[in-house]
Amino acid sequence: MTPVMNEAELQEFLIAAYPQIFDMYPGFSITHIAPGEVNVTMETDHRHIRAGGTISGPTIFSLADMGGYACVLSHIGGEALAVTTNLNLNFMRKADPGPIFAKCRILKLGKRLMVFDAEITGTGSDEMVAHATGTYAIPPRTGG
Amino acid sequence: MTPVMNEAELQEFLIAAYPQIFDMYPGFSITHIAPGEVNVTMETDHRHIRAGGTISGPTIFSLADMGGYACVLSHIGGEALAVTTNLNLNFMRKADPGPIFAKCRILKLGKRLMVFDAEITGTGSDEMVAHATGTYAIPPRTGG
Amino acid sequence: MTPVMNEAELQEFLIAAYPQIFDMYPGFSITHIAPGEVNVTMETDHRHIRAGGTISGPTIFSLADMGGYACVLSHIGGEALAVTTNLNLNFMRKADPGPIFAKCRILKLGKRLMVFDAEITGTGSDEMVAHATGTYAIPPRTGG
Amino acid sequence: MTPVMNEAELQEFLIAAYPQIFDMYPGFSITHIAPGEVNVTMETDHRHIRAGGTISGPTIFSLADMGGYACVLSHIGGEALAVTTNLNLNFMRKADPGPIFAKCRILKLGKRLMVFDAEITGTGSDEMVAHATGTYAIPPRTGG
Repeated sequence: MTPVMNEAELQEFLIAAYPQIFDMYPGFSITHIAPGEVNVTMETDHRHIRAGGTISGPTIFSLADMGGYACVLSHIGGEALAVTTNLNLNFMRKADPGPIFAKCRILKLGKRLMVFDAEITGTGSDEMVAHATGTYAIPPRTGG
Repeated sequence: MTPVMNEAELQEFLIAAYPQIFDMYPGFSITHIAPGEVNVTMETDHRHIRAGGTISGPTIFSLADMGGYACVLSHIGGEALAVTTNLNLNFMRKADPGPIFAKCRILKLGKRLMVFDAEITGTGSDEMVAHATGTYAIPPRTGG
Repeated sequence: MTPVMNEAELQEFLIAAYPQIFDMYPGFSITHIAPGEVNVTMETDHRHIRAGGTISGPTIFSLADMGGYACVLSHIGGEALAVTTNLNLNFMRKADPGPIFAKCRILKLGKRLMVFDAEITGTGSDEMVAHATGTYAIPPRTGG
Repeated sequence: MTPVMNEAELQEFLIAAYPQIFDMYPGFSITHIAPGEVNVTMETDHRHIRAGGTISGPTIFSLADMGGYACVLSHIGGEALAVTTNLNLNFMRKADPGPIFAKCRILKLGKRLMVFDAEITGTGSDEMVAHATGTYAIPPRTGG
């Protein structure tokens, strides 16, 4: 399970391939890549905060899902056309406005499925805000 | 399991209590309430479409989660301060741009937990795009 | 989504291929097969009842998982070497000793993944005891 | 999050309160308790092995579920009448016959819900066989 891109290479790839991610998720950034591990983070603004002043569920879903996609891309390469097939989220605590962080771990990198989990934390506390596990399906590559 | 609000009453409640929902999710609408059942729908625009022209995962998560919240509110009342504790999503097919629909069903309405599932469909096909099951925790009411 | 075996054919196949199922799960039976639908049932004895006199979680897990496998076999054929990759269970109510029933539905039958859900009911009430969603991975067939 | 029982105390409690666990799951043992952490293990015999010679899904479900219950009991006490409300399992690899191990972690210990995850490993490899996340509901204690 050896990464094929480092943090700067994956960041550059995402900016070129998916510029709209950075509109929706300002400050989205790959902060760590190691064998089987990827950390990502993002800022939050009024679009990510819901009534009551806490970070919204869809924002946490998005960070976990993008973290899983970063696991696939960093370990298989930018040509991977993977799609999320399952994502299970447990929400444990409210997250105050501010940056949020996902510490992702590849549980299995098969030829056809990548399984990962993600620990989501927020600002001002080390306690986990949410936990996710998910599966990406990896289409067979049309040879060349 | 008898609803305490009808479609128009819940719609009005949401507009008054959570106006920002209608900015993020244009056309969000309660289309059906019956004992143990709630259907919701929303329009989609460029913010909900990802590269490749399909409706994004966070958008589907949002519709399922709001459907679950509509289950709680319609069957307990607007004073319910319920929070999502778990949401599990299976993504089955791509959804073309256009309105999306969630057909939600209450699997259990306990004093402290509400469990539901949701069938998500899109435009142009009856086939399910995604399936969700989730749990809302219902805080004890401070008596009056 | 057309079944390739009927109830009697799948029952006979399982008895021949997996006789130990009928030791562990007495009375395991395929009661209904239709396009995208399979119902299964089993008896329960002291091995399936836990302290307090209710049917155990592993028993419910087993029925849901075997229901999913019956979905694969009945719609693809007995040569399918599918394996469970994900199973998510919500437990809603206690189930009294007696037969239990799973009403399974295929949500997606792809070339490589089969997604299903299952409504589990027990004896003496129509209310759902548990709800499951799961995924089976279907290996490519080695041609011939 | 301070444990209220150590390994020997919880083992003794389980033997007295749930003797049938040790019939179904031979060698079930609490091997580690620390703040927010509980490890459990069990032996496997012909009842836990399925066709093909690998440990069955229900056996893995059981170990994860008992690990979660051990998290509750060790951190709240033997009077806790907690019940599983949700369990999500990802199966990653086959497990050879032999002892299996669950490394459980409490993600949240609230007044009414305990959320945990579990890493399941088998014999002969450090690689994870399965990963579980689950929720136990903790009934209010009738005061005294």
